[in-house]
Amino acid sequence: MKAAVPQILTPDQAAALEVLSQGSRFLLSGHVKPDGDCLGSQAALARVLEKLGKEVWIVNPDPVEERYEYLSREVRFRTWSGGDLPTHDVEVFLDFCELSRTGPLEKALAAHPSKKVIVDHHLFHGTPWWQAAFVDSRAAATGVLVHRIARALGVELDSVAALGVFTALVTDTGWFKYSNTDAETFGIASELVAAGCDPSRVFDSIYQRAPRSEPRGIGRALSRLEYFADGRLAVVDLPRAAAGEEDLADTDEVLDILRAVRAVEVVLFLREQKDGSTKLSARSKTEFDVNQLARRFGGGGHAKASGATLAGPLADAREKLIAGALEQLGVHAASS
Amino acid sequence: MKAAVPQILTPDQAAALEVLSQGSRFLLSGHVKPDGDCLGSQAALARVLEKLGKEVWIVNPDPVEERYEYLSREVRFRTWSGGDLPTHDVEVFLDFCELSRTGPLEKALAAHPSKKVIVDHHLFHGTPWWQAAFVDSRAAATGVLVHRIARALGVELDSVAALGVFTALVTDTGWFKYSNTDAETFGIASELVAAGCDPSRVFDSIYQRAPRSEPRGIGRALSRLEYFADGRLAVVDLPRAAAGEEDLADTDEVLDILRAVRAVEVVLFLREQKDGSTKLSARSKTEFDVNQLARRFGGGGHAKASGATLAGPLADAREKLIAGALEQLGVHAASS
Repeated sequence: MKAAVPQILTPDQAAALEVLSQGSRFLLSGHVKPDGDCLGSQAALARVLEKLGKEVWIVNPDPVEERYEYLSREVRFRTWSGGDLPTHDVEVFLDFCELSRTGPLEKALAAHPSKKVIVDHHLFHGTPWWQAAFVDSRAAATGVLVHRIARALGVELDSVAALGVFTALVTDTGWFKYSNTDAETFGIASELVAAGCDPSRVFDSIYQRAPRSEPRGIGRALSRLEYFADGRLAVVDLPRAAAGEEDLADTDEVLDILRAVRAVEVVLFLREQKDGSTKLSARSKTEFDVNQLARRFGGGGHAKASGATLAGPLADAREKLIAGALEQLGVHAASS
Repeated sequence: MKAAVPQILTPDQAAALEVLSQGSRFLLSGHVKPDGDCLGSQAALARVLEKLGKEVWIVNPDPVEERYEYLSREVRFRTWSGGDLPTHDVEVFLDFCELSRTGPLEKALAAHPSKKVIVDHHLFHGTPWWQAAFVDSRAAATGVLVHRIARALGVELDSVAALGVFTALVTDTGWFKYSNTDAETFGIASELVAAGCDPSRVFDSIYQRAPRSEPRGIGRALSRLEYFADGRLAVVDLPRAAAGEEDLADTDEVLDILRAVRAVEVVLFLREQKDGSTKLSARSKTEFDVNQLARRFGGGGHAKASGATLAGPLADAREKLIAGALEQLGVHAASS
């Protein structure tokens, strides 16, 4: 089955396809700590371009997390460690549109005389620094755009490309839960499963690999929960684990549990870092814009999910963030 | 977009459609404690039959859980409290095939001279007691079958019917995670979302309604975790909440967190009950059959999810269950 959305390309998208068609040696690059959408989109686009007879290298600033090993077994993801980049005439950036997000790779990529193409679903407010862009900020994932590119180029996704797009879809929609999950997302998922993707195996690979210490770490975090504004704001602040305590590898589970409370609109999860700074993960269930909150503290992200790193001790960061969130909620500080 | 599966009906299914087409007054009934697949399928089939000019009553042995209020606001679900059934010529049973599962309704339904039709995706090994059956045990949910029925009858799903089928799909596939999630599931989901279903709103209604005490209750449970057999067995035993502690309304979240640990194969969650007995919830991630374990203690369920209630104090029940699980795992008792 083909997905529902009619394949109408914008002039910019058509121009990007032209650059992809014309190039012969491609370097695909991702952002620091590449996530499922970034890696899955790279895997899929690499396969599509290779099917068209192109040479493709994937070079990222960071290695692939173990949870995506089912992709890295099939596709070679290189991690840049300095030195020359492979010979290439086109650079494709997937799932971001600020070149600085390539971290240590930025200089080498910028200095290279290749054509730059971005494939992304994030909003961008700066001056374009690329030659071509395949962008749609309404797409649920960058993987959706790679799927559209493959169709437009007349390339059928093989099983590895299908796994890549599926990985992109599920990680960026919170496994079909977030409000970006649309008919196109499900339509593509149907096509990918018909092509052999196994949802329960992908789920196990990505989400069923927690270390044994994880449940106690989650328990420790939850024991520090405090509500504000009649439960509309939930705050957890986690000092660095003391000896004998369990560290928390993954914060998503804690955020999900707090979001599942009916009254909760906003979740702030603060973790003390090694260097004494405080890392914020903020989530919203409603119209509350956590991007707006995070930007006030030097961070950012999406309206529903954002983050920031605040200098100074945990208690100070906590106080400021709670005050900021309560102000944005239109209420004044009082624990409840 | 229409779902992928070609609409080829078995002779039995065609006969069932004939009964649905011919009938004029329908009584739809569900099993005790009707779940999302049962209620969603009833809502959808009621709308489809009404569109064909039929009269429809939904009469269940138990009321609708609050989490499905978005359906019960749109469709009238009656709860039987004795007395005469509404006048009808066809009874349709959704999501089960043993009449005893209608509990207190069984006698009245069986005694009525109406035609009996079942719509179901469970295996049945007995002697058919119905006049017609629309059954496919490979379907991910009964809601999938109602979707097929609507298509075969040429009825377009309205927004309420779409919500019903979507509810059926997501609750019976564990929100697209279980191994029954297939291309047809995603294809139908795509169609329903295109017709106006909002996945994140349905998710919120079903799963985002925890009380404020829930996260601390989960935290308390997780703090009592102990592993056995190199982490293959995870055990949590929860005494009744003392004053000032948080009680746990829903155990699924705790079970999911433990199941997400890579090493874990079996999870035993034991809760002390008011009457001093111990309630077991057991889950398996592998071939380990928790039904076999639960049956040894007077309970049962499925291979992957079972339960039991054990007389006597928590500590005794815990010791016996751990010994039983370790035996079944083929290892001897030693905490690890």
